[in-house]
Amino acid sequence: MEILKNYINGSWVESKSTSSADVVNPANQEIIAKVPVGKSTGQDMALAIEHAHKAYEDWKNVPTMKRVQPLFSLKKLLEDHKEEIAVLITNECGKTFAESLGEVQRAIENVEVACGAYVMGQSEFSENIATGIDEFMIRQPLGVCGCITPFNFPGMIPFWFLPYAIATGNAFVIKPSEKVPMTMQYVFELIDKNLDLPKGLLSLVHGGKDAVDAMLQDSKVKAISFVGSTPIAKYIYSEGAKYGKRVQAQGGAKNPVVIMPDADVEMTTRIITDSVYGCAGQRCLAASVIIPTGDDKGVFKEALVEAAKLRTTGYGMDAGTEMGPVITPESKTRIEGLIQKGIDEGGNLLLDGRNTTISGYEKGNFVRPTILEGLPLNGDLMGTEIFGPVMSLVNFKKLEETIDFINKGKYGNMACIFTRDGLAARTFRNRVMAGNVGINIGVAAPVAQFPFSGWKDSFFGDLHGQGRHAIEFFTQTKVVIERWPRNWSRKF
Amino acid sequence: MEILKNYINGSWVESKSTSSADVVNPANQEIIAKVPVGKSTGQDMALAIEHAHKAYEDWKNVPTMKRVQPLFSLKKLLEDHKEEIAVLITNECGKTFAESLGEVQRAIENVEVACGAYVMGQSEFSENIATGIDEFMIRQPLGVCGCITPFNFPGMIPFWFLPYAIATGNAFVIKPSEKVPMTMQYVFELIDKNLDLPKGLLSLVHGGKDAVDAMLQDSKVKAISFVGSTPIAKYIYSEGAKYGKRVQAQGGAKNPVVIMPDADVEMTTRIITDSVYGCAGQRCLAASVIIPTGDDKGVFKEALVEAAKLRTTGYGMDAGTEMGPVITPESKTRIEGLIQKGIDEGGNLLLDGRNTTISGYEKGNFVRPTILEGLPLNGDLMGTEIFGPVMSLVNFKKLEETIDFINKGKYGNMACIFTRDGLAARTFRNRVMAGNVGINIGVAAPVAQFPFSGWKDSFFGDLHGQGRHAIEFFTQTKVVIERWPRNWSRKF
Amino acid sequence: MEILKNYINGSWVESKSTSSADVVNPANQEIIAKVPVGKSTGQDMALAIEHAHKAYEDWKNVPTMKRVQPLFSLKKLLEDHKEEIAVLITNECGKTFAESLGEVQRAIENVEVACGAYVMGQSEFSENIATGIDEFMIRQPLGVCGCITPFNFPGMIPFWFLPYAIATGNAFVIKPSEKVPMTMQYVFELIDKNLDLPKGLLSLVHGGKDAVDAMLQDSKVKAISFVGSTPIAKYIYSEGAKYGKRVQAQGGAKNPVVIMPDADVEMTTRIITDSVYGCAGQRCLAASVIIPTGDDKGVFKEALVEAAKLRTTGYGMDAGTEMGPVITPESKTRIEGLIQKGIDEGGNLLLDGRNTTISGYEKGNFVRPTILEGLPLNGDLMGTEIFGPVMSLVNFKKLEETIDFINKGKYGNMACIFTRDGLAARTFRNRVMAGNVGINIGVAAPVAQFPFSGWKDSFFGDLHGQGRHAIEFFTQTKVVIERWPRNWSRKF
Amino acid sequence: MEILKNYINGSWVESKSTSSADVVNPANQEIIAKVPVGKSTGQDMALAIEHAHKAYEDWKNVPTMKRVQPLFSLKKLLEDHKEEIAVLITNECGKTFAESLGEVQRAIENVEVACGAYVMGQSEFSENIATGIDEFMIRQPLGVCGCITPFNFPGMIPFWFLPYAIATGNAFVIKPSEKVPMTMQYVFELIDKNLDLPKGLLSLVHGGKDAVDAMLQDSKVKAISFVGSTPIAKYIYSEGAKYGKRVQAQGGAKNPVVIMPDADVEMTTRIITDSVYGCAGQRCLAASVIIPTGDDKGVFKEALVEAAKLRTTGYGMDAGTEMGPVITPESKTRIEGLIQKGIDEGGNLLLDGRNTTISGYEKGNFVRPTILEGLPLNGDLMGTEIFGPVMSLVNFKKLEETIDFINKGKYGNMACIFTRDGLAARTFRNRVMAGNVGINIGVAAPVAQFPFSGWKDSFFGDLHGQGRHAIEFFTQTKVVIERWPRNWSRKF
Repeated sequence: MEILKNYINGSWVESKSTSSADVVNPANQEIIAKVPVGKSTGQDMALAIEHAHKAYEDWKNVPTMKRVQPLFSLKKLLEDHKEEIAVLITNECGKTFAESLGEVQRAIENVEVACGAYVMGQSEFSENIATGIDEFMIRQPLGVCGCITPFNFPGMIPFWFLPYAIATGNAFVIKPSEKVPMTMQYVFELIDKNLDLPKGLLSLVHGGKDAVDAMLQDSKVKAISFVGSTPIAKYIYSEGAKYGKRVQAQGGAKNPVVIMPDADVEMTTRIITDSVYGCAGQRCLAASVIIPTGDDKGVFKEALVEAAKLRTTGYGMDAGTEMGPVITPESKTRIEGLIQKGIDEGGNLLLDGRNTTISGYEKGNFVRPTILEGLPLNGDLMGTEIFGPVMSLVNFKKLEETIDFINKGKYGNMACIFTRDGLAARTFRNRVMAGNVGINIGVAAPVAQFPFSGWKDSFFGDLHGQGRHAIEFFTQTKVVIERWPRNWSRKF
Repeated sequence: MEILKNYINGSWVESKSTSSADVVNPANQEIIAKVPVGKSTGQDMALAIEHAHKAYEDWKNVPTMKRVQPLFSLKKLLEDHKEEIAVLITNECGKTFAESLGEVQRAIENVEVACGAYVMGQSEFSENIATGIDEFMIRQPLGVCGCITPFNFPGMIPFWFLPYAIATGNAFVIKPSEKVPMTMQYVFELIDKNLDLPKGLLSLVHGGKDAVDAMLQDSKVKAISFVGSTPIAKYIYSEGAKYGKRVQAQGGAKNPVVIMPDADVEMTTRIITDSVYGCAGQRCLAASVIIPTGDDKGVFKEALVEAAKLRTTGYGMDAGTEMGPVITPESKTRIEGLIQKGIDEGGNLLLDGRNTTISGYEKGNFVRPTILEGLPLNGDLMGTEIFGPVMSLVNFKKLEETIDFINKGKYGNMACIFTRDGLAARTFRNRVMAGNVGINIGVAAPVAQFPFSGWKDSFFGDLHGQGRHAIEFFTQTKVVIERWPRNWSRKF
Repeated sequence: MEILKNYINGSWVESKSTSSADVVNPANQEIIAKVPVGKSTGQDMALAIEHAHKAYEDWKNVPTMKRVQPLFSLKKLLEDHKEEIAVLITNECGKTFAESLGEVQRAIENVEVACGAYVMGQSEFSENIATGIDEFMIRQPLGVCGCITPFNFPGMIPFWFLPYAIATGNAFVIKPSEKVPMTMQYVFELIDKNLDLPKGLLSLVHGGKDAVDAMLQDSKVKAISFVGSTPIAKYIYSEGAKYGKRVQAQGGAKNPVVIMPDADVEMTTRIITDSVYGCAGQRCLAASVIIPTGDDKGVFKEALVEAAKLRTTGYGMDAGTEMGPVITPESKTRIEGLIQKGIDEGGNLLLDGRNTTISGYEKGNFVRPTILEGLPLNGDLMGTEIFGPVMSLVNFKKLEETIDFINKGKYGNMACIFTRDGLAARTFRNRVMAGNVGINIGVAAPVAQFPFSGWKDSFFGDLHGQGRHAIEFFTQTKVVIERWPRNWSRKF
Repeated sequence: MEILKNYINGSWVESKSTSSADVVNPANQEIIAKVPVGKSTGQDMALAIEHAHKAYEDWKNVPTMKRVQPLFSLKKLLEDHKEEIAVLITNECGKTFAESLGEVQRAIENVEVACGAYVMGQSEFSENIATGIDEFMIRQPLGVCGCITPFNFPGMIPFWFLPYAIATGNAFVIKPSEKVPMTMQYVFELIDKNLDLPKGLLSLVHGGKDAVDAMLQDSKVKAISFVGSTPIAKYIYSEGAKYGKRVQAQGGAKNPVVIMPDADVEMTTRIITDSVYGCAGQRCLAASVIIPTGDDKGVFKEALVEAAKLRTTGYGMDAGTEMGPVITPESKTRIEGLIQKGIDEGGNLLLDGRNTTISGYEKGNFVRPTILEGLPLNGDLMGTEIFGPVMSLVNFKKLEETIDFINKGKYGNMACIFTRDGLAARTFRNRVMAGNVGINIGVAAPVAQFPFSGWKDSFFGDLHGQGRHAIEFFTQTKVVIERWPRNWSRKF
């Protein structure tokens, strides 16, 4: 099996590295590719950046109206190959085919929004700020920008950045997770064959920490977009800052969902179950702590346990599968360990998804839906991101208490409430300290024209991915003050 | 002489520190105050932040329309006390009274713009992003925000941030330069006596690095605005990032001004002389490298030398003074050393402002206008910010060469051109890598509704001070996705 | 008693007309002033416009930052004289002193928002729409603009337009209702004495239809803002269009308020009663048709009748007065006639406010709170704006039916709903055809940064009063496409 | 030859009218189609509107993200059929094939911009305008909107409106000029076959004044966009207003172009010649009055006459043709009459394009390039739109005089200046009273993200076509004020 090539300067190029890591289908441990890793991937990165910088030098002068034309084509390209991409996603990251299709759709929507870059990128003009003086702003590209993306949304997350970066005149380098390199590999094959982009404008470089550090330290890279766990997000943010770059770094989460007594049992249960167990809980917007609030009769608990039990776990490409495996055996071990830790901390295991074996996929990293209740509120596990199909149940009497509890958490990615009451919803969205808030929504992922707004330890930086924020992040403002004094031209 | 107090929780409080530094009038070395410094100022900072955080907890819930009311009063207050403030500025930082008045005016303009926070702070609403689902964004305050400001604009720079920070619902802490604490001291006295603000909302904490580090490390501080030299800006940016904060850090500059052959000699000379020698060159937008471009006959050189010679240097409060002293004796020594370095590197000293004594102000840190030409383009001094009244003259034949030379520099704060030619101006503003660009302007300081846009090593971060950028910097976005499913409420 | 003068070209000038109408206190028929009317007021208008045009010719060149300075002063001026203005409002238009104070506050808020005109008036800049070509937009003033305002908000409605018009560089002429000229007369005295405005920039011209027609037909007037009844709004809109002007014309209303079964009886009753009877029902946002929806037990009806009965009617300056008189005896007669018509059409009179006499104010045009129910849904009265303190009660079983009923009406000024249910509220605001929608709000008047958005026969035009809409209405866009071809300037 | 059908309710339908007019190729008088006209076309219009209204009732509820999907397809459709459309344009309206291709490109760009409707259509949200009260705005569609378009840009002008109208949720009816119905006929065939749009959403109704009046008078039509001559624009504007609609009506022009002495002779001449004679002068942005300004040596006059002489006139599909015929024989007669009138008024005919016969196209309505100079500045012809290939030459000594002369004109569509001088350009764009201004541009047509901004008698209304203005024009604002009082929901 050959080692995956990098896409640099418009061509597929072998890595300088001869070390590689396996890319493995998490449903069956089948090795589906080998991806370069190791020290020399830093050289790959440097080479990609060098060519990217050259591409930028021309691309920055291309009118935005022309720069968005490839995005119109890219939208169609992704639509036309939606299923092929989704198969790759399922096979390398484990989620179900339906989830993979949904993921690609979100990528497409970001491309659509970025097609509007020449409206969104307009800046401000003020005539006559003082007599005879005009002042205006221009948005110009930064140079080479890059993203470092996680394993859980290989087909979507790069598109929170890529289309905006190039629409605004930058060159862009993607370093995908070495666990899931195939999706972008295929997307770049499509781009290579179908789009007429300047060489070096888009690059794909594989690797792990070495490639990341090379990107962080390269002075030609002006901006880095990162999505991953909080510790790495912090590392990227502070290292990027050390090298003077602008950085947006999205970290982990522990997402609470509040159920008010007036919520409809059936629908709430269905939506929350989807949120907790969708993508096997490996979403930064997965619901994780479920909080029936008020004089709870246990009805929601019962319904949630019942629904979780019924969830079909298996290979994501099989019809009927509702939940796939987690990404690696190590991940499975970690999740099962955390479940045990929950029990050890005094939690009550209502549903145990450990030691799961799926017939036909005996080697798969499967963890079945799990539910814990009664965890100590200040315990370790309550503050730990599990990133697996584990629901924790907590109760409070009053909404205000619930919000106070949520706001004590260190993360702030998502918070949702289920209610039909306008006041409860408004109180919640006003007070809760999270950047993506759902009212009767299970996965509060902003559509592409809104910023994906983590708060607290879920995000480091100020401008987020998607929409106008992305346009701002990928451009620097130039303010021009202009005067044409009379004395300069007396003759007219 | 008593040590200056801090303004914490709505009262004047003695510093925990018993060490102090002298505040000195740079025109005569008169000690005008003593300012606390040393380790314990970190405790002062911590106390101020603690109270600020409490103030924020209430203030964040006050409607913006009410939060801007004190700003309307503040505008009037600053207007009514413009002269008193300007006297303080001149006496502690040395610039002329006229320059000080101009500085206060810019502060006022920022307050005016921030009065519009309830329009500027509006966010986006999209009905029906999917059937029955609405999505919208809210801008909410961050918490405690702080600024660390330099000696050269004690009356203006805090206002690039303060009015926007509080208008958007934050509490704000100012750590002014320990060299020029009197201006903000007086402004805070005015605020204390005249404005009806919640206790703790605005704080003034004196000190040096200890106070700064306390601000950087305090987890209640969510955002830091810094203006100063590039090395410190880098420190603040990376330290702030290490502690997970958002940071905007403005650094040094080496600002080029291009003169095209068609520029009017008299007016160009007058404006450039003002830019180079205004505030004794201690402005981050001071012109520094003057570049007559084209088939130069030396006419601009002659005129610039002549104009520089005639500049009246002296105590800023004396009538007729056109240039005051530099901030400290150390600064004078440093500047004179850099002039010598220029000569040593091969520069030709056309005008020598060293060893200046002003009668009646013999102890003042005066440096007279200085002009160097023929410095090596790649020499050390050409890349060094002098921050004193020193002009370097450089020539190129073609505008493109000039721009290339400018773009090789490490700073990108300002770049100006003098010409009557539309094409030259457009080429320049399109290509030059600087965030504040002047066309026939000597000091391209953006008015308050535009961001103060440094590039390269002149700025670290993405959102700048002033205007909408400030509104964005001081708020975090919360995206709400809202659905009210039919099943929840069947009865109507 | 002298006839009121006009304010033209910065001076108080006698009308050309010798005819006059009485300005009468509606609480006691006391004549408080005489206002010029008749043919020759058209000449007054022409004179004012002529001088306004001259003022505009200079004012348009004044930087916006300077043009808003008088607005900052005006805000303070109105605040300092709030009570005096409110007394005048009460005495000439009848509403209570508290209502008058509230009205002035809304005027002040519009002045505040217009202070932000130099941010709101920024337009768009696009660099490099094609290689080397930039395109941008400028907003420039129109010229002379005017407003024609109704009797019911003499202190507020002119300020929906005036501050925006002058901030953007226009001259402005006000033609107040001849029934309530005193409020603006006083405001103009304040302006004349305290603000430093160019002569002719603001004019006040009294009169009736003759003055209006002169404004409509004068080619120097470029834009007209009107608020009044629908038939006159239509006349202004089509006449203005005939003369090529831009027009925004706000007309009448018949505002429905829906009560869902889950609404709190006490609070709903209190708020609706305020909305129906506040300003004696003479508000374009007065609630008029109250629609308890669902399986109504009559609880709201009872509570509403009870609350209406208790409402204290009398002279607006007397302590405890909750409702003042209607504007004229003719108005009283008209309202009482419409009540009778309601009875004749089959309505059931639950509360009869006719034939009211208030002790001490026997000549006042008082009508006490009136409630009709059972009016035929397609009857005449149901579609007629009463503009008096008359509530009509209607019932439907389902919200959808209620909305359909509302949407059949010809007006679309306001529609409100009282509920705690998020779905009911969302369905209502999504579907109801009205431009100002309240959720648990009695008088859904947009704050000054939002447009006052009537729909259907309640508004003719596209850009409304207040906020950004006003900025757009009072400016015309100029798009500049700029290129500086290389061939023009070979020498650099 | 069959009479063209209308496209109503998603099908091709025969007109109710049996009268028809010929559609004629202006290059050879060949009849290429018959278009229904006469009284009964009003019934066609009514039918189309009725079905359009039904389509709107559903379409308004479709999320914008879905409503723009057909626009993405439409972009590709127009690109794929660009040449076929261009052939039709050339054959029915006479312009050259290259001009026709350029026209279609502009149509495509408007479709692209409208694809961004879900960003551009976002409205404003303000949390907590008062404690616990939120206020926000929604943009909702109007209903049925229509456009009435002229003969000179059959492929572009409908697209200034159509894509924005449907993206924002309206149904749209086009009434093209009866002289050039084939282009839209073909575009609708493409749409019918390729796009999956709801029936009735887009309609094409042929006819003349009867169809127009039916559209004006139909109460279901809420907005009309018109482009044509000023007298008809006035009619549409005032008639539309009479029926309470919003109207944007673009009229005629008499576009001045100023040449400063420093302009490059060759390039200026080439660009101006293209502007004057392109589309045979039948453009609302055709340069018409050319004004060399300053101490003119006649060099521009000579060069312009020379360039005009060399212009190849002929059938637009023939290779090498630089100018096609004018639209009708009547138009040719009118233009030639106006040239004679110019002579009669004292003008000097420098180049006479009358009595032109093109070999092989003897019946074509050809007028060759014509140049008049010395027309009286206040004469009739100087104020008359010729709409043919006729240049008038005027001279002034100073730019200020030139601007004063231009500003006296009744039109304000376009004004251009050729210069390399920044001050001249700035003075011109600041002072000239025209909505589309070119600096070294011959045809200052705003790109699609900017409004096509006529002033004075060139435009009636306030919101223009294209970009954000179109989004605003085709939506009405709904302001929602929302409160959820505590009392409503005590139990949580």
